[in-house]
Amino acid sequence: MKIDIHTHILPRDWPDLKERYGYGGFVQLDHYKPCCAKMMIDGKVFREIKSNCWDTEERIAECDAAGVTTQVLSTVPVMFSYWAKPEDTFDLSRYLNDHIAEAVNNAPDRFEGLGTVPLQSPELSVKELERCVNQLGLKGIEIGSHINDWNLDNENLYPFYEAAEDLKAAVFVHPWDMMGKEKMQKYWLPWLVGMPAETSLAVCSMIFGGIFEKFPRLKVCFAHGGGSFPFTLGRIEHGFKVRPDLVAIDNKVNPRDYLGRFWLDSLVHDSNALKYITDLAGSDKIVLGSDYPFPLGEHMPGKLIEATFPSDADLMEKLLWRNAAEFLSIDSLTINQKNAGEKNVR
Amino acid sequence: MKIDIHTHILPRDWPDLKERYGYGGFVQLDHYKPCCAKMMIDGKVFREIKSNCWDTEERIAECDAAGVTTQVLSTVPVMFSYWAKPEDTFDLSRYLNDHIAEAVNNAPDRFEGLGTVPLQSPELSVKELERCVNQLGLKGIEIGSHINDWNLDNENLYPFYEAAEDLKAAVFVHPWDMMGKEKMQKYWLPWLVGMPAETSLAVCSMIFGGIFEKFPRLKVCFAHGGGSFPFTLGRIEHGFKVRPDLVAIDNKVNPRDYLGRFWLDSLVHDSNALKYITDLAGSDKIVLGSDYPFPLGEHMPGKLIEATFPSDADLMEKLLWRNAAEFLSIDSLTINQKNAGEKNVR
Repeated sequence: MKIDIHTHILPRDWPDLKERYGYGGFVQLDHYKPCCAKMMIDGKVFREIKSNCWDTEERIAECDAAGVTTQVLSTVPVMFSYWAKPEDTFDLSRYLNDHIAEAVNNAPDRFEGLGTVPLQSPELSVKELERCVNQLGLKGIEIGSHINDWNLDNENLYPFYEAAEDLKAAVFVHPWDMMGKEKMQKYWLPWLVGMPAETSLAVCSMIFGGIFEKFPRLKVCFAHGGGSFPFTLGRIEHGFKVRPDLVAIDNKVNPRDYLGRFWLDSLVHDSNALKYITDLAGSDKIVLGSDYPFPLGEHMPGKLIEATFPSDADLMEKLLWRNAAEFLSIDSLTINQKNAGEKNVR
Repeated sequence: MKIDIHTHILPRDWPDLKERYGYGGFVQLDHYKPCCAKMMIDGKVFREIKSNCWDTEERIAECDAAGVTTQVLSTVPVMFSYWAKPEDTFDLSRYLNDHIAEAVNNAPDRFEGLGTVPLQSPELSVKELERCVNQLGLKGIEIGSHINDWNLDNENLYPFYEAAEDLKAAVFVHPWDMMGKEKMQKYWLPWLVGMPAETSLAVCSMIFGGIFEKFPRLKVCFAHGGGSFPFTLGRIEHGFKVRPDLVAIDNKVNPRDYLGRFWLDSLVHDSNALKYITDLAGSDKIVLGSDYPFPLGEHMPGKLIEATFPSDADLMEKLLWRNAAEFLSIDSLTINQKNAGEKNVR
């Protein structure tokens, strides 16, 4: 069993959003050759993707090859479109969420889904969150590391957190719109330096904003092993202690006390780093995440976990799927069905 | 013996820079009460400091209390003033460097110095670097994690690197002007999240820009344990491997191969993190750095090293002073004199 909680999917096609909403800035796919497409923003290439980004049969074949039982599907962060008019992002979110739900429904033993919501409008995001969970059967929502000028402590997000808590919806926080990107255009640095910083920003904002105090049952997982947060926690905790007038203004609890309160995915590409975050967050809180199908991801999902803890079958099982089942509130009946389904496919 | 390579000092007073240069944006001290001063920028408080930021007798007394033999003095990064007119930063640098040299000359057995240079003008920065080393007896230069729009790979900086290499001048890289600061105004996040990212930006820029290849004898140390770099190296290396078209455009060497090539200071506030970076960078490349006299620093410099490696006297000695002596090119004769001086003071 392997549940990969961090995989991205796009529809093969979607309406022309510039035409639909009346302004640019959205992503469109240019299927310029059979296997591949270019993600275009206003005529400029954002990134090239392969057909496994939309082709579910190809995905299932690659899952079989890697022994992945279940992929948890979520959109590509550039699709969040929090910057657009709320009603347009709402419309786009519905389109993307319907597509993810369709993929899950077509192969319920192989896929689960996380939706996206127009977080720049708390009201619309709650509405779409409810639809995702109650009507579409998605397990939760993928959100960005910040929402335009709001960090994740922002009070405007409380209604979303409250609804997610009530619905037992999992919240998967993914870095995007990377800080400093305009100043580091070479060497892929927004992905290599900016993303880990964005994730640390997200964790710190939720901790210092008291989000885990206000919404004690909220289930949150941070991508990429929590970015730079786990390793700079010493500095963060020290800052909290020496300048409470700056840091502890909204929450008096030591940031270290939140270790074990949230999940981190395993995408750190280094055995020592994986051991480090497992020691820190606890063996119940690390979940397999591969960033499939992107090159910066783990190409054989779960391999790092298996290589890091080869002699601890129990721990491996937790990291490869049990912790994810807990995070996603997947019950054991469903897991047995998935397991059976996966065996049939193979 | 303890050599603390990361301490900041300011003159007690300096000329009114707005008056001297004809425009604002510079720091001035407001000595509003005996023990303390406010660092003011254009009438706004930037940070409050205590008299140990300028009073060398107080510093020596605090060093004695903490068992620090030698403090390496450098300016506070906000004084870099790379944004100003080059000739004005040149003038200010000379003022600050003269002050540091004076402090060192008044207590040569307790202080060493790193200067600051107007890096926005490579020509002027080389001129001042030469003066710092040849005339003032400083051991090197403290530089920022980026210089306005230049990252540390920028070709404009080559003459500075070349001169530093020729002069055997140590280069201490300190985060400043933190990415994303405008978007994280609460919870001291530019210091807790932005600074580790800035340092990773600096390390990555120097590695991917091939600086260590072009200037093989250049001695570089990164503050705060290298920020988020050591812990996100798995991701950085993976990025290098999977997208060489983006990452390996200026240098084909794996970033991991540079471990052991540069120094990192010990300021990580966490024993496990200190062990991690020591394993990674090597026992010869971690140097005591406390960020004295600021609250985010280590208040008893060297305590973390002593607590982390209590039973390894050789390793402790390396981290507490031997590695720093190597980085700063301090010979053993000088060290003996310092040691004797320290004993006399005590």
